[in-house]
Amino acid sequence: MSKFLELHNINIGLTVGVFFFLNFATVKAQGSISQTQQELLGVPAQTNIRNAKYPQILQDNRVVFKIKAPEAAKVQIDLGKRYDMTKGEDGTWTVTTDVINKGFNYYSLVIDGVAVADPASETFYGMGRMASGIEIPNKEGDFYALNNVPHGDIRIKHYFSKATNSWREMYVYTPPGYEKATEKYPVLYLLHGGGEDQRGWATQGKANLILDNLIAENKVKPMVIAMLDGNLPNAGGIAGFNENALKAFENELKMGVIPFVESNFRVATDAKNRALAGLSMGGLQTLYAGIKNSDMFSGIGVLSSGWWANNPDLSEPQYEFMKKNVGKINSNLKEFWISMGGKEDIAFENCKIMMGKFDQMGIKYRYSEYPGGHSWPVWRHDLFAFAPLLFQ
Amino acid sequence: MSKFLELHNINIGLTVGVFFFLNFATVKAQGSISQTQQELLGVPAQTNIRNAKYPQILQDNRVVFKIKAPEAAKVQIDLGKRYDMTKGEDGTWTVTTDVINKGFNYYSLVIDGVAVADPASETFYGMGRMASGIEIPNKEGDFYALNNVPHGDIRIKHYFSKATNSWREMYVYTPPGYEKATEKYPVLYLLHGGGEDQRGWATQGKANLILDNLIAENKVKPMVIAMLDGNLPNAGGIAGFNENALKAFENELKMGVIPFVESNFRVATDAKNRALAGLSMGGLQTLYAGIKNSDMFSGIGVLSSGWWANNPDLSEPQYEFMKKNVGKINSNLKEFWISMGGKEDIAFENCKIMMGKFDQMGIKYRYSEYPGGHSWPVWRHDLFAFAPLLFQ
Repeated sequence: MSKFLELHNINIGLTVGVFFFLNFATVKAQGSISQTQQELLGVPAQTNIRNAKYPQILQDNRVVFKIKAPEAAKVQIDLGKRYDMTKGEDGTWTVTTDVINKGFNYYSLVIDGVAVADPASETFYGMGRMASGIEIPNKEGDFYALNNVPHGDIRIKHYFSKATNSWREMYVYTPPGYEKATEKYPVLYLLHGGGEDQRGWATQGKANLILDNLIAENKVKPMVIAMLDGNLPNAGGIAGFNENALKAFENELKMGVIPFVESNFRVATDAKNRALAGLSMGGLQTLYAGIKNSDMFSGIGVLSSGWWANNPDLSEPQYEFMKKNVGKINSNLKEFWISMGGKEDIAFENCKIMMGKFDQMGIKYRYSEYPGGHSWPVWRHDLFAFAPLLFQ
Repeated sequence: MSKFLELHNINIGLTVGVFFFLNFATVKAQGSISQTQQELLGVPAQTNIRNAKYPQILQDNRVVFKIKAPEAAKVQIDLGKRYDMTKGEDGTWTVTTDVINKGFNYYSLVIDGVAVADPASETFYGMGRMASGIEIPNKEGDFYALNNVPHGDIRIKHYFSKATNSWREMYVYTPPGYEKATEKYPVLYLLHGGGEDQRGWATQGKANLILDNLIAENKVKPMVIAMLDGNLPNAGGIAGFNENALKAFENELKMGVIPFVESNFRVATDAKNRALAGLSMGGLQTLYAGIKNSDMFSGIGVLSSGWWANNPDLSEPQYEFMKKNVGKINSNLKEFWISMGGKEDIAFENCKIMMGKFDQMGIKYRYSEYPGGHSWPVWRHDLFAFAPLLFQ
């Protein structure tokens, strides 16, 4: 423990091995370490654990990482790009990165080739494991800031799904005033990406703060957001990547999720008051289940996704289905929203091809682009832009 | 990413670097790796991330850890005791531990001297950082199992505290049926230990499941549990370790927490319906704020804690205060519960000395012992034993 604290210059004066309960006699006050000028120019990231001085964000959004690892032979920071850290005489490794994208970024600490979460940061379930995240300040990010407005809740709900015959978990946003109101709210069912889970939109996505802020400005219809776990057991692979997995998701949505939400929350239960959206893998699940069941939803949102051009076995039957149901789909879906993180989004080409097919067959949709690639800063902005269009 | 997946034999067939969105053409089905007999005898821990085969728990509760780290010179597992792992020819390190305590255990992976969270497990805020946890099966643990009973919610709440002049977060358990009931519930204010936060009782502690199960068996009065963040900013050190920090907590409890809970939840607002409890550091906060304000509470619980015998500057004024108020304290507190994780609990001696002083001055309390030391399995059982005594 004390090793860890030293590692990050945590100034809480702990020197004992057992952290929970400290013998007062062993606690020594430590002065804070004198800071170099570089350190004074930076600020600890919002995503750091309490009292950790590093990583530190410089004014131009470059980031200084620092970690004590005297016995390691090679230490790197992986932020998509890998940065080699440099070892100092005291066994402390440091690196200053390039300018990092505003908003939320996943990253890893790589110690002698093993990618792990940085003990100095909060962890987030992403990339298929608990990964580090760093929040870079964003002047245009007031829409997801914790502002002085009424706040809704995030509720962690266990439910028994008849579709999977197992207990599952969802995170549910209820808007401010939900408790005391009597109205029935509309519901947005919202899906994370591959390697993520039901926690993604609440932590990486800040969906609750985005809605709190939109509601405070009267820019959105107050709604419940059910943040689902799109990972299905025994679906023959990651959901979204074969027909069985997509069907398993559709089943869970119709037999597990929607009945649970509609019988446990004060929500309206007609198609007009239901929407479905998802990012990346969740966008494929949305395309599949949302379009096949367009009579159940008034809006769908497909973020940074699109049927695979190079997997016609999966995509062709979808296009066939849509061709036969153009009129029905267009009339059911008051809002069919497709968004992309600019040309740098890895889903860009697939999505463009898909929209070409939609144009050919006369499917109506709205397209939105926001630069930033295949990343959470884009998806936060997508929710901010998409939610106000729903339930009108 | 793919390196990470290989590392843990995760069989989801991913070979691309970007996890969110997979180009179908690059996805190859991989057969599961043939298992040795040892592997077949073990089962992946409940706390593993999805699809991670290791750590694996053997029938006798020894644990097999396995991690690929071909470039590392030394890899260890730290479970309180440090286990050196052995490197195989393929760069995979393995170790089989001794028998591990039933229930929840913190642990770290130590790569060339750096203690980090194991990427194969879920992380938990403990020991002052995001740490790994492993849940060891427990036949006597049905009281915290996810059973087929009605489930309450965990709600993540932001609130603006007038005491700290900042936004803070608490986790609140609401019992099953809270939404539809009209009764006003009693509230237990519940505190984590040092190096933990408001997430501790909901994740490591499984407080929600413990209450769900007790309520289903009609063994406890349905209650709201406000799981607080006991860490106070600018309190001159970790709360609990000096008078200023303890006062800062008392302030936050009285000016921040209680007013927020009582105006935002359907709860009773008299002393009869309020209780305060905490473990370790949180036990000190409870001793300080609960006894000083015994007119506000009908029950207090002090888990694995006790005033420091060797810090009379802090403890003597508390004993003086108690001596002067014995009658009042005894009559206010219908339940003053003190518990200890057996002789192996690091707080045992301090607690014994404290109880001796209580006996001398005639303070009434109930003492409970459950073996397991200074650890979450003990605190889960403490909540299970203590909650039914409240609000009678």
